[in-house]
Amino acid sequence: MSTSETGILTAPTSRREFLRNGSLAAIAVGAAACTPAAAGTEKTAAAAGHDGHVAPQGPAAPAVSAADQMDAMHEAGIKAFPAKTDVWGNQLLKPRVEKGVKVFDLTASVVKWETEPGKRIDGWSFNGQVPGPQIRVREGDRVRVNLKNDLPESTAIHFHGLELPNDQDGVPFITQPPVKPGESYTYEFTVPNAGSHMYHSHHNAAKQVALGLLGAFIVEPRVPTAYDRCDVDYVMVLNDGAHGYTVNGKGFPATEPIVCKLGQTVRIRFMNEGMMIHPMHLHGMHMTVIAKDGWDQPQPWKCDTLNIAPGERWDVIVKANNPGTWAFHCHILSHAESQHGMFGMVTALIVQK
Amino acid sequence: MSTSETGILTAPTSRREFLRNGSLAAIAVGAAACTPAAAGTEKTAAAAGHDGHVAPQGPAAPAVSAADQMDAMHEAGIKAFPAKTDVWGNQLLKPRVEKGVKVFDLTASVVKWETEPGKRIDGWSFNGQVPGPQIRVREGDRVRVNLKNDLPESTAIHFHGLELPNDQDGVPFITQPPVKPGESYTYEFTVPNAGSHMYHSHHNAAKQVALGLLGAFIVEPRVPTAYDRCDVDYVMVLNDGAHGYTVNGKGFPATEPIVCKLGQTVRIRFMNEGMMIHPMHLHGMHMTVIAKDGWDQPQPWKCDTLNIAPGERWDVIVKANNPGTWAFHCHILSHAESQHGMFGMVTALIVQK
Amino acid sequence: MSTSETGILTAPTSRREFLRNGSLAAIAVGAAACTPAAAGTEKTAAAAGHDGHVAPQGPAAPAVSAADQMDAMHEAGIKAFPAKTDVWGNQLLKPRVEKGVKVFDLTASVVKWETEPGKRIDGWSFNGQVPGPQIRVREGDRVRVNLKNDLPESTAIHFHGLELPNDQDGVPFITQPPVKPGESYTYEFTVPNAGSHMYHSHHNAAKQVALGLLGAFIVEPRVPTAYDRCDVDYVMVLNDGAHGYTVNGKGFPATEPIVCKLGQTVRIRFMNEGMMIHPMHLHGMHMTVIAKDGWDQPQPWKCDTLNIAPGERWDVIVKANNPGTWAFHCHILSHAESQHGMFGMVTALIVQK
Repeated sequence: MSTSETGILTAPTSRREFLRNGSLAAIAVGAAACTPAAAGTEKTAAAAGHDGHVAPQGPAAPAVSAADQMDAMHEAGIKAFPAKTDVWGNQLLKPRVEKGVKVFDLTASVVKWETEPGKRIDGWSFNGQVPGPQIRVREGDRVRVNLKNDLPESTAIHFHGLELPNDQDGVPFITQPPVKPGESYTYEFTVPNAGSHMYHSHHNAAKQVALGLLGAFIVEPRVPTAYDRCDVDYVMVLNDGAHGYTVNGKGFPATEPIVCKLGQTVRIRFMNEGMMIHPMHLHGMHMTVIAKDGWDQPQPWKCDTLNIAPGERWDVIVKANNPGTWAFHCHILSHAESQHGMFGMVTALIVQK
Repeated sequence: MSTSETGILTAPTSRREFLRNGSLAAIAVGAAACTPAAAGTEKTAAAAGHDGHVAPQGPAAPAVSAADQMDAMHEAGIKAFPAKTDVWGNQLLKPRVEKGVKVFDLTASVVKWETEPGKRIDGWSFNGQVPGPQIRVREGDRVRVNLKNDLPESTAIHFHGLELPNDQDGVPFITQPPVKPGESYTYEFTVPNAGSHMYHSHHNAAKQVALGLLGAFIVEPRVPTAYDRCDVDYVMVLNDGAHGYTVNGKGFPATEPIVCKLGQTVRIRFMNEGMMIHPMHLHGMHMTVIAKDGWDQPQPWKCDTLNIAPGERWDVIVKANNPGTWAFHCHILSHAESQHGMFGMVTALIVQK
Repeated sequence: MSTSETGILTAPTSRREFLRNGSLAAIAVGAAACTPAAAGTEKTAAAAGHDGHVAPQGPAAPAVSAADQMDAMHEAGIKAFPAKTDVWGNQLLKPRVEKGVKVFDLTASVVKWETEPGKRIDGWSFNGQVPGPQIRVREGDRVRVNLKNDLPESTAIHFHGLELPNDQDGVPFITQPPVKPGESYTYEFTVPNAGSHMYHSHHNAAKQVALGLLGAFIVEPRVPTAYDRCDVDYVMVLNDGAHGYTVNGKGFPATEPIVCKLGQTVRIRFMNEGMMIHPMHLHGMHMTVIAKDGWDQPQPWKCDTLNIAPGERWDVIVKANNPGTWAFHCHILSHAESQHGMFGMVTALIVQK
């Protein structure tokens, strides 16, 4: 997988371009094709057996009116997707290289984080992003992370999943002092084990991580495998704190669709930074599970609903062989839909012909 | 596995016959053998070391009285099992065949659903059943599903796990219009992938599925395997909405025991349509896990407690080599027992000699 | 694995000695090394890039003061670890041998259980311990368990995971009468299947197990494997009832560290007796999962966060190749940390050089 190929999903400029030119149109087409009128003229397999939308009569009418109101809210949510918000989290952070060391600067600060259009909530961010910027390095790299704490509380960074020397483990009073408000602290290590890992606060973490002090820490293996050459490599961080049920810091319809072309291979790296399980269900295609917490599973196995528990990472491969816009959501239905429509942990995999 | 062999567990007439003639007697015998008097005369291994039921004296007496009251409630629940209720869900639905197409008619409507004797709650049903009727087809079959909506809300059917063309995926405003109250809608497709799947509402689903708009959609493989020739093939749908903690729409003691003969092979297809995990624990024998979401696991593996997350399906095999009536329940104990006795997600596997 | 080798972690006298002489010193050293002053002189890789602890000025000062107060509470918790409490649960229970039968006497009674220093809550115990005493036998052993009920309620023991004859299964009114207050009852059986199992009440269990009527029942295989010869064999029972979030009946800082030497192999047997999932996360090293519910997995697989559901047991191996004191906790962060510091389901794996 090259950075340029995945850029469409991670670089904000490419993403905006995508929203203007690409799949938004596809989605609009999809939505248009779904109005009752359009459906009536569809030349699809389903149309063959279609017996029409008979208008109800008499006593059922008031119920229908309430049903129409509910449907209108549902439709508005779908049509708004993907809704624009101030800024994306999980943006790839390019390191400075100093004498062969990849240096990442992370500043922890409180921002107003827009989870969906117009809904701004205190976010405890790295570099103003929730999730914090995505870090991608290679096994064996020398890495330095400069943490600046602009929060009103002390903090620290734990590199969750990396098998580091003890003094780099980021647990205040066990492996280091807390980093006080206004202070800075530096971590430096040689990247030990490949895989989909995370970095997050390990101080007052039930609050700090819930508010957003977290990010993906991807370690590419020294020797790439076939899985590392897939067409799209997408990181999906789940959370369930004060920002609601979020996928990469946003709730539907402000979540980001995953877009690929028919026949491509998509790798998804699920990461749960919340406090609840989230069984993620993909419509239309199965997922092949290849790794858990960055470690290869002994043999790949298939599913369409993958239960992600707090702290876990799961890597899956989707062979995008079924064209269309596919719902992709947490199957705890109360995390994904209310009578007002879909919300929270819902996004889509768009397979373009 | 032939339909007739599994009929005892799915056809209501056979079931009533079973209750009159078969395992109810077995259960009654079991209960009788469990009274203290009977236990005192048991010639079992346990009896050898039995040192009697010494009646407590003096200050402990009031506590014993409360204990007796509690025990009486527990005993009454067990003795009532399997308690009769109005109608069963999950009944096998035979299709009409029209020009080679298997046609299933499903009407969504609100009923009073009896979850346990005398406890009737609004159920949003397919064909008056919760879970809706069980659909069983074969890989490659042409299938038509006619949905009639007699609910006060719009709805739609998502075939969870089936890799269908996008326009058959059942997500309102993404792949089809919602089906309004009083309207009908037809799905038609060639059955793609084998396995234990589900069908359920994908509109206002946190409410509609919780109230019962769901059912099992079993796809038998084109080429049957040994697992498809097991003696009993049982579908166990879990839910945790307004009907309480239910197994196939009923709470204990109105749940249905799984009955087999010593030496037989039982296949259980777990399906979670609820919003919580349910780690199902079988007493007396282990379960061999063979498939997840309809896909074979790379190698079978064994357990006695299997965690089923919302949206997941797990297929297991039980070799019924241990005779007796075995508790089979969710091990979140508050889903299975209170001070008033066992309730909710409890059933039994009865292995008859 | 010999009993003497694991004695340091299970025998209370050895443990106290450990607290006086061993790792408490190690922890104290660790804590000392973590004060800001000490950190400033560390000659670690991290120190190279360390840019100091700049004192904040002006408006930020009040925040810092609150931060300091919070940090002081966090530090006090860490420094108190492992905090002494009245008595440990999960102590190895040596059987009497009567004519070749291993006899275990268990008395169920209500005690005041100290979950952390000074916090005493009603515990429903076996032999005054929560978890009850650890039972270890061998496949094929003849075992007798004498239960004496000194509780104010009836009870019974279910041997969770053992494939026993039905009349030894411990489910009141299905396989035996309840054991009334003041009464006794005897179980006797030949131990069938090896693995990490449990024993617990199966009567009013949502209350009785939550209050502590549970213990580990380990069955060593007839033919030991390499996994049975590991250096440390540690049983970790999780619970989440009235005693809070506990590891072997205690909340942090009263939990017990797992101690080993660099290069040793540690086997951990996770058991969840609670009503919630607990994804346990080990820092610094991965865990290799070898068994589920006492049954070998087809192939070992690796992770750093293992989701343990109620009723499940998972066996893992840790190769202790990374020296230091490593946090080991439930990654549902609200089970492990509050603004007052770490609590509940937190312990440590200490790898001594």
